[in-house]
Amino acid sequence: MEAQARPIGVFDSGLGGISVLRACVRLLPQENFLFFGDSANAPYGEKSLDQVRALTLSAVDRLLEQGVKGIVVACNTATSAAIGLLRQLHPGLPIIGIEPAVKPAALAAGSSSVIVMATPLTIREDKYQKLAAAFCGHANVISLPCKGLAEMVERGIFDGPVLDAYLQDLLLPFRYCNIDYIVLGCTHYPFVRKAIARNFGRPVSIIDGSEGTARQLRRQLEAASLLTDRTGFGTVTFQNSRPDKLAMSQTLFQMKY
Amino acid sequence: MEAQARPIGVFDSGLGGISVLRACVRLLPQENFLFFGDSANAPYGEKSLDQVRALTLSAVDRLLEQGVKGIVVACNTATSAAIGLLRQLHPGLPIIGIEPAVKPAALAAGSSSVIVMATPLTIREDKYQKLAAAFCGHANVISLPCKGLAEMVERGIFDGPVLDAYLQDLLLPFRYCNIDYIVLGCTHYPFVRKAIARNFGRPVSIIDGSEGTARQLRRQLEAASLLTDRTGFGTVTFQNSRPDKLAMSQTLFQMKY
Repeated sequence: MEAQARPIGVFDSGLGGISVLRACVRLLPQENFLFFGDSANAPYGEKSLDQVRALTLSAVDRLLEQGVKGIVVACNTATSAAIGLLRQLHPGLPIIGIEPAVKPAALAAGSSSVIVMATPLTIREDKYQKLAAAFCGHANVISLPCKGLAEMVERGIFDGPVLDAYLQDLLLPFRYCNIDYIVLGCTHYPFVRKAIARNFGRPVSIIDGSEGTARQLRRQLEAASLLTDRTGFGTVTFQNSRPDKLAMSQTLFQMKY
Repeated sequence: MEAQARPIGVFDSGLGGISVLRACVRLLPQENFLFFGDSANAPYGEKSLDQVRALTLSAVDRLLEQGVKGIVVACNTATSAAIGLLRQLHPGLPIIGIEPAVKPAALAAGSSSVIVMATPLTIREDKYQKLAAAFCGHANVISLPCKGLAEMVERGIFDGPVLDAYLQDLLLPFRYCNIDYIVLGCTHYPFVRKAIARNFGRPVSIIDGSEGTARQLRRQLEAASLLTDRTGFGTVTFQNSRPDKLAMSQTLFQMKY
């Protein structure tokens, strides 16, 4: 197959990365996408660094065997642990990682405050701490660990009283703060964006990094002359190490948020 | 007994109010103090408003029967629930309540941020929410619910790895925030002030309301011509609805913090 016609591989430890996939499909609708979720091993956050590296390398190999022309690592934990190693192992292959969109939010917020919602593990990681430190001169960066929120999304909870009560408790400390931006620092959180906005209770800009990731994917494919010249819509294929997760993958992909 | 020579009654649902007692003793060392802790019914935070009202009225009666000349309600929950009723029932009696020192911190913080540490119940109360709302124009008021922290103090945990880990988790979100003041919005928290400062990791002013309460006590006794003319040190007497708590009362009263 001609290189440009090959699919783009998108990988996540679970289903959250489907929010990144959606942004990529929206920006590059002519491309074919192959999404692999490793739900059998999720969440990666509770594994050792070397375990996450090994799982990520296997997942990427699995996508490469199916002929992908580039890789989006749509998982914060896998990006932190393995992106450098992946680039060493596959020179020339476009490999895009993700990170919480702290930079655009902090630059836009001026002297006000930004809440970064992320998993407890992401927030504890050196990589995140460096990112937050780099922009704390621009704005107050409040790094809010959201224990259990990604798991709720994985279980299909996008709305309702349990989620509302959880979010109200989580956001209560900031009711009397001047918060201009909430950064969704986990790929699962865009699926509960409406619930977050409603329970925050005041107007706030909610930012996720997926559009930035999609733009970076386009830039890298363009630089490598790998953008498709297909004119119709491409296809999106889901694979998962737990086949019972394929239905939920479709649900998330088609969900309005 | 001459009115001025009578003791001052200080009341708390447990032992936290001893931090308020200490500030009062420091400012008015010639006075006699009678502290009653209702540990048998602690924590009040989990009871209904009417239960808290009834318990507070009984505790105040108990102190009045022993001839106190004024009352300090050294408990946030009891103050919220019963201070207005107490003043109705005992006109002319100096009755001092407490509230988190949000005002002085917010006015001093300018445009920066203030963290108010308090129990989850205090933060959910209307009274606290109004207080925070009133000063959010002056500073960012972050209202941080500290679940379990008062209970650790009641169990005698003032230091050590469990407390350090708890505080590090609690304060991690604010590592890259411009925080100038931490308000201790619960009477238990002054006993872990050093641990809070150490685990915050950067210089910060830690404010508790007890000195303001002590000054208000002095003002009200002075206005009623009830300050003692004793010249030597007064006495401090502890009573508790759970006699096994008397040893801990002494420990807290003598603790350096």
